[in-house]
Amino acid sequence: MEFKISNEFLSQIETLISENRSLELLLLLEDIHFADIAEIMGELDDFGAGYIFNTLDSEKTAEILLELDEEVREKILRNLTPKEIAEELDELSTDDAADIIGELTKHIKDQVISELEDVEHAKDIVDLLRYDEDSAGGLMGKELVQVNENWSVLTCVKEMRAQAENVTRVHSIYVVDDEGRLTGRLSLKDLLTTSTRTPISEVYIKKVDYVKVDTKDVEVARIMQKYDLEAIPVVDELGRLVGRITIDDIIDVIKEEADKDYQLAAGISKDVEADDSILALTKARLPWLVLALLGSFVAVKVSRTFEGAMENYAVLFFFTPLIAAMAGNVGVQSSAIIVQGLANNTLGGTIWHRLFKELKLSLFNGLILAVILMLGSHFIIGVDYSISITVAIALLSVILIASLIGTFVPITLNKYGIDPALATGPFITTSNDILGILIYFSIAKVILGF
Amino acid sequence: MEFKISNEFLSQIETLISENRSLELLLLLEDIHFADIAEIMGELDDFGAGYIFNTLDSEKTAEILLELDEEVREKILRNLTPKEIAEELDELSTDDAADIIGELTKHIKDQVISELEDVEHAKDIVDLLRYDEDSAGGLMGKELVQVNENWSVLTCVKEMRAQAENVTRVHSIYVVDDEGRLTGRLSLKDLLTTSTRTPISEVYIKKVDYVKVDTKDVEVARIMQKYDLEAIPVVDELGRLVGRITIDDIIDVIKEEADKDYQLAAGISKDVEADDSILALTKARLPWLVLALLGSFVAVKVSRTFEGAMENYAVLFFFTPLIAAMAGNVGVQSSAIIVQGLANNTLGGTIWHRLFKELKLSLFNGLILAVILMLGSHFIIGVDYSISITVAIALLSVILIASLIGTFVPITLNKYGIDPALATGPFITTSNDILGILIYFSIAKVILGF
Repeated sequence: MEFKISNEFLSQIETLISENRSLELLLLLEDIHFADIAEIMGELDDFGAGYIFNTLDSEKTAEILLELDEEVREKILRNLTPKEIAEELDELSTDDAADIIGELTKHIKDQVISELEDVEHAKDIVDLLRYDEDSAGGLMGKELVQVNENWSVLTCVKEMRAQAENVTRVHSIYVVDDEGRLTGRLSLKDLLTTSTRTPISEVYIKKVDYVKVDTKDVEVARIMQKYDLEAIPVVDELGRLVGRITIDDIIDVIKEEADKDYQLAAGISKDVEADDSILALTKARLPWLVLALLGSFVAVKVSRTFEGAMENYAVLFFFTPLIAAMAGNVGVQSSAIIVQGLANNTLGGTIWHRLFKELKLSLFNGLILAVILMLGSHFIIGVDYSISITVAIALLSVILIASLIGTFVPITLNKYGIDPALATGPFITTSNDILGILIYFSIAKVILGF
Repeated sequence: MEFKISNEFLSQIETLISENRSLELLLLLEDIHFADIAEIMGELDDFGAGYIFNTLDSEKTAEILLELDEEVREKILRNLTPKEIAEELDELSTDDAADIIGELTKHIKDQVISELEDVEHAKDIVDLLRYDEDSAGGLMGKELVQVNENWSVLTCVKEMRAQAENVTRVHSIYVVDDEGRLTGRLSLKDLLTTSTRTPISEVYIKKVDYVKVDTKDVEVARIMQKYDLEAIPVVDELGRLVGRITIDDIIDVIKEEADKDYQLAAGISKDVEADDSILALTKARLPWLVLALLGSFVAVKVSRTFEGAMENYAVLFFFTPLIAAMAGNVGVQSSAIIVQGLANNTLGGTIWHRLFKELKLSLFNGLILAVILMLGSHFIIGVDYSISITVAIALLSVILIASLIGTFVPITLNKYGIDPALATGPFITTSNDILGILIYFSIAKVILGF
């Protein structure tokens, strides 16, 4: 039942734009959801996107602005006066408006704020801009329904009707005391089924989950997921109710966090997308590659110290990429499981317990792989048994060490407050490459003696 | 403001259990959220977990059951009679109950269903069991508030009160016709502000987003995210309203999907957690490792065909792990960006456009890396210029090819309906290893002539 942008539809729109038939365009887009219009604008050139934006009325454009890709939005905003931007923001909820203002330059930001028509709205937005983007304060919106614990049900219902004007979705009714401190919540159901003269203090629930303005966004996400909340109130240092966070904002946090771990594991250090500029992509990718290259220098150096083996056991050198690759693969597997366990908060037990378990696992897997390598190198590659036994023993040792490092490093990073996902990807592959080659030749030297 | 399980608290609980002081235990756990109690049970041994479960009353245990780790839940359920399980399920919403029943063996499943007390509830659960787990039908619950388009506002409010008894959170009121077909929705706000004698048909919104029972779960997640929905109705083949999906169920889908991509990239093929058994972890990890090992055999074979270079250019062999590692790193980066773009549906343009962009990017990055390698191999490793130029040119070529493959493979897999995340991880590293080594020695052969 979802709307899909067909090529025909797109070219129909392009025609209408190029022939300046704005009324027909308006008619065509009338029933299209703003999220879809934003997607259509992303597919058009700058002129086309701007044309659509200017044709639609501001109630729709404000929501579209929110859904646009950051680059497209930037271009659209650049063509608007501060007054026009302020008009769009007046249509948005405080948290969404604050997010867009946050993207503007300091100079324009101040002008836009001074042009905001609704003073209350403007005050709320300015208030939100104070908070760190990654905190509960940065996520929350000011729109909420709150009642005083000293009111009666009747007063509440009246006040709520007025407040609900500004709130699209009422998740919860929060109860505060005379100082504005959060004291509990009220369920719509209870409110509907209670006599209107009852004082609120008799019906409201004194227990309420909340977060503080400086709670980290990932922590808010964890709490809301764990306790299955669709909204959570935010209080300031004095316990006063200052905003609320809804689950849709949290979904973005969850997705970003998961994407970030994935990108780190793939050796991409910044939040980039395929459509970003080559410069942005290079900034995210090149540092890791340079690091990996420098690490590989060490690996070359290490294998060179075993040059003596070239004379009688040159065949050993054919196996170095295999040993290095397996060390990398095992290390990435081990660390990924730990990183995910840490991210999902499902990692129980001590570090020793983890290491011991990983040791058992990699001993089991390593033995199977070593046997395959021993047989394969003899029968498929055709090397002597002395060589095939040597590489098999080396592989087993390398797998054991790589898996222990893959387990140890992320747990240790996490303990010191560093993102454990850093440990996956090129970092672990490269260090395991070096170590793998060192262990491999050392074992070969002991067994074969060169 | 979140509850944290301290070691003191845990040992306090353990003492109460071992001394069979159930009343004190009950008092201690009284104000603890069921999600936290589930977490505590996960930390205890089987006896302790069972003891807590038996001590608490069934209203709380049903919710706890839902929050428990699958293994712990399985153990708890094993000690319950079908009648006792049915009693727990009677407390749960239909979708949650269906999920738990889905985990039981066929034999016990039937017994449990026959023991369910509330016949309507049982019918709903059985109905839900028909659907595929990964479809909208498998995600949806039966609890919803629906009104007939021919009713008046007053009738609606009355009916809604009755229906709302079974619904914890009213997200939307759905409007159906006499055949039960979904025709629109009603906002609580409109209902509150309209005269009670108005017919519903005059106030309800005729446009409503919905999904079909067989819509894939990831597609439902995409729609709900895109259109910012907190709940979506589900209709059957005839358009009849059969259930609704809420955003909290979708969060699990989003998280699972992101975790799966991450695991595939790390070479883990099944949804495993650090706490799973060694056998389960081996099943998820060993297949990839065996595949990577077999791939590495090919790499060994390939580098062996260039054995002739050993005589005069033995130093080339020290660089094979470096070339292979860089090919792997670049390939993983390229494919990860594509996989993420496909997952988030942000990948515009044709495949040729993508390949051309990636070519430009990797040419730029590759040149920088090649220069570093050229200088580094000469000044740090100390090889001749002829060798350092050779490895630098080989590196550049390998990076170009690896990035093109990393771009091409996931797009192509996706086109044929295969999960593109398969292309990242060991698969791409291994194939790039092989190709990298082949290209490296071929170029060296052309330049140096051996």
